[in-house]
Amino acid sequence: MKHFLSFQDVPDLSQLITSGIVAKRNPFGDQEMGKNKTIGLLFFNSSLRTRISTQKAAQNLGLNVIVMNVGQDGWGLEMEEGVIMNGDKAEHVKEAAAVIGSYCDIIGIRSFASLSDREKDYQEIVFQQFKKYAGVPIINLESATRHPLQSLADCITIEEFKLKERPKVVLTWLPHFKPLPQAVANSFCEWMNHAEVELVVTHPKGYDLSPDFVGKGQVIYDQDKALEGADFVYGKNWSSYEHYGQVLSSDPSWMITNDKMSLTDNGKFMHCLPLRRNMKVADEVLDGPHSLVIEQAANREWAAQAALREILLGMK
Amino acid sequence: MKHFLSFQDVPDLSQLITSGIVAKRNPFGDQEMGKNKTIGLLFFNSSLRTRISTQKAAQNLGLNVIVMNVGQDGWGLEMEEGVIMNGDKAEHVKEAAAVIGSYCDIIGIRSFASLSDREKDYQEIVFQQFKKYAGVPIINLESATRHPLQSLADCITIEEFKLKERPKVVLTWLPHFKPLPQAVANSFCEWMNHAEVELVVTHPKGYDLSPDFVGKGQVIYDQDKALEGADFVYGKNWSSYEHYGQVLSSDPSWMITNDKMSLTDNGKFMHCLPLRRNMKVADEVLDGPHSLVIEQAANREWAAQAALREILLGMK
Amino acid sequence: MKHFLSFQDVPDLSQLITSGIVAKRNPFGDQEMGKNKTIGLLFFNSSLRTRISTQKAAQNLGLNVIVMNVGQDGWGLEMEEGVIMNGDKAEHVKEAAAVIGSYCDIIGIRSFASLSDREKDYQEIVFQQFKKYAGVPIINLESATRHPLQSLADCITIEEFKLKERPKVVLTWLPHFKPLPQAVANSFCEWMNHAEVELVVTHPKGYDLSPDFVGKGQVIYDQDKALEGADFVYGKNWSSYEHYGQVLSSDPSWMITNDKMSLTDNGKFMHCLPLRRNMKVADEVLDGPHSLVIEQAANREWAAQAALREILLGMK
Repeated sequence: MKHFLSFQDVPDLSQLITSGIVAKRNPFGDQEMGKNKTIGLLFFNSSLRTRISTQKAAQNLGLNVIVMNVGQDGWGLEMEEGVIMNGDKAEHVKEAAAVIGSYCDIIGIRSFASLSDREKDYQEIVFQQFKKYAGVPIINLESATRHPLQSLADCITIEEFKLKERPKVVLTWLPHFKPLPQAVANSFCEWMNHAEVELVVTHPKGYDLSPDFVGKGQVIYDQDKALEGADFVYGKNWSSYEHYGQVLSSDPSWMITNDKMSLTDNGKFMHCLPLRRNMKVADEVLDGPHSLVIEQAANREWAAQAALREILLGMK
Repeated sequence: MKHFLSFQDVPDLSQLITSGIVAKRNPFGDQEMGKNKTIGLLFFNSSLRTRISTQKAAQNLGLNVIVMNVGQDGWGLEMEEGVIMNGDKAEHVKEAAAVIGSYCDIIGIRSFASLSDREKDYQEIVFQQFKKYAGVPIINLESATRHPLQSLADCITIEEFKLKERPKVVLTWLPHFKPLPQAVANSFCEWMNHAEVELVVTHPKGYDLSPDFVGKGQVIYDQDKALEGADFVYGKNWSSYEHYGQVLSSDPSWMITNDKMSLTDNGKFMHCLPLRRNMKVADEVLDGPHSLVIEQAANREWAAQAALREILLGMK
Repeated sequence: MKHFLSFQDVPDLSQLITSGIVAKRNPFGDQEMGKNKTIGLLFFNSSLRTRISTQKAAQNLGLNVIVMNVGQDGWGLEMEEGVIMNGDKAEHVKEAAAVIGSYCDIIGIRSFASLSDREKDYQEIVFQQFKKYAGVPIINLESATRHPLQSLADCITIEEFKLKERPKVVLTWLPHFKPLPQAVANSFCEWMNHAEVELVVTHPKGYDLSPDFVGKGQVIYDQDKALEGADFVYGKNWSSYEHYGQVLSSDPSWMITNDKMSLTDNGKFMHCLPLRRNMKVADEVLDGPHSLVIEQAANREWAAQAALREILLGMK
């Protein structure tokens, strides 16, 4: 694997899932693999799980880790080509990417959506520029449109907890008063389209995700109907794709409660975290026996380790 | 030792002091002990000595270290149970603790007092929640009410410099214009109550610490009288416990000078740092032969190493 | 080598350059040298290249690395002696330096010029205080007046790319709308004065650097004339030394373009980065075959490794 930016970079999903499960059983089995190699983790935005789990996974593989909060520790980066740089950005990504690529063997990047300019967000300029100029493998630690390390952890979690050959997985929109990116929802759909599942997506009207991501997923606007017989309920809030970045509804009836879960086939609840309790999901669900959110977050370490291992194998 | 939150967690003080002194003589003697284990250090507040000395001690023991400035790098954490999270906190401590506990084998936390709500501060909610939900040993890097790594370093320092079997130790309040927490003073009293010392506490009226911490310590409101015959003078400012978080006095006559030190029995001066020169303590004392502040700070490394070693032994 | 604060600390320049080139060919050849030693990197200001390249170099030598953004992670530091500390600085450098020096075997520091008080800036108080009180080797990660790790990387780069025994090197001022320090320009002159080069310095009137740094360098106020026959063009903006910290001109005709480069003898372009494209230097130069800015930045790793190696050898 050369980069890990989206599902398209994955040569073999089931092999990658297996690699994650193997890492979980034996975290230090490949400790020599990353020896004398360095991963740089660049955060343009806040991060807890991704920050810690990726560092941990890298260290499990023997990699050195250098973490940098880009805006805070370094310089504002200009992403546009050809501009006169007389504003507040002191450095161009062309230089920053090439320079960091000369120090680091792998670069991980987190850079969220602006939610103000859909076309620009969906072009993923930061990642494209780093891919073009850094000259080393780039790992997506959540971009404007995708969060593949999360999606891989989700696949591992579903693999571990599924009771049927082809479980029904329902991605449901949850209420929130702030506009959030579509990245996790997009990415989840993208990966589920290639997994052995029946994918249903449910949300209020106006919250349709880009069809490029929904793919074969069935869209049902009635949450109760969508949840019927679900094996996994995957909750997430996102802002509107059509009316880009807008909050069109924060209808509390979309919150996941035990009543909602009772519509499923003894379904498990998943969410990428962080989440706001009693706004998106009720305490009773999160603290009850059907929640997988902690197991899912714990699997972030093994997802990162599987992805990094595949990248390291590709560098030999 | 399962956790290191207060003196109550310490099975044997003199053994812990000895362990610190052994580490100081041979820092890398237990380098295999932490192999393939990771400590996460979470800072809700600023830190210099604790930040660096704990990292150093952990590395001496072969631990991997992941540092995180919680508010800055991650998400605001909700500590209350059962609330509707529609404010500025994006994540609940229940999830954060469990998730970080799934990546890290030990978690160190610094979280200062608010100084606005005494009952809440003294409940130590952050630490109690992490202890409850993280599932791994928790180390106190200074909480609202205690700073046990400092107190252990203080014990090591007194052990190294004492000239009598049972020295007289005077904890004296120092003037400051800002409200500071009671944590260091509380913790010092708590530990001194179990050490072979005669403890005297001196401060202006209104600055009495909680009796739970003062214990057998003798309170004398006249600083000059308290200092008579002291072997160790331990300076610290704190805000009022009774009139919680208030600055009732910043009387400059409480500043430690050579004149004040001359009342002691050739006493040594100690302070946890940082400190404001010529407001709390005069240059002449800090730059003179009786100051132990640097030796004391240096011992933070060996205190942390002793505590971490004890935690690691408890994990086997 | 005891410290690495300026050229004066370097015992043998050509040996240091060679050491950098050897490290580049065999980065891990001295991996045992730093074992069980720790370098603390203290940043009072932003940093990208220095931050990452110095961490990388230290890890190549087997050192443990502790990074701290001083103002952000710790306490404001008072640098003046004898003051009453009743302002916003909670800790004195005397304590901070001694304490950090007790935890770390080497300390690297970045602290920029204020550009408001020339005398104070040029005294380099932060570095002098750390040198005086830390008791361990201090490395300059860019001070108010110098950036020796950059200058060493520049020397390595010129050594690698020179086609003549004694190349002509032109340091040219570049336009910028903000006041920048003189550190990189000063330091470059200081090192070039001891290298096998012909040094020319060109800038608008009023931008003369301190004669202590320019040394044997020839000052020419006409950029076109200065560039004639140049083998290396080293671009940099700096604010006025005479009218301290002022921007006297941002004349766009001083920007480096292909036309300007055509005046040279097939000259190479160098710049320490970050730089603002199309204000200081045109895209056509940076993206063309004569730019060395990425190679130069990549050499920061080997410069840091050579300096750290020399410091480690001096500690035996």
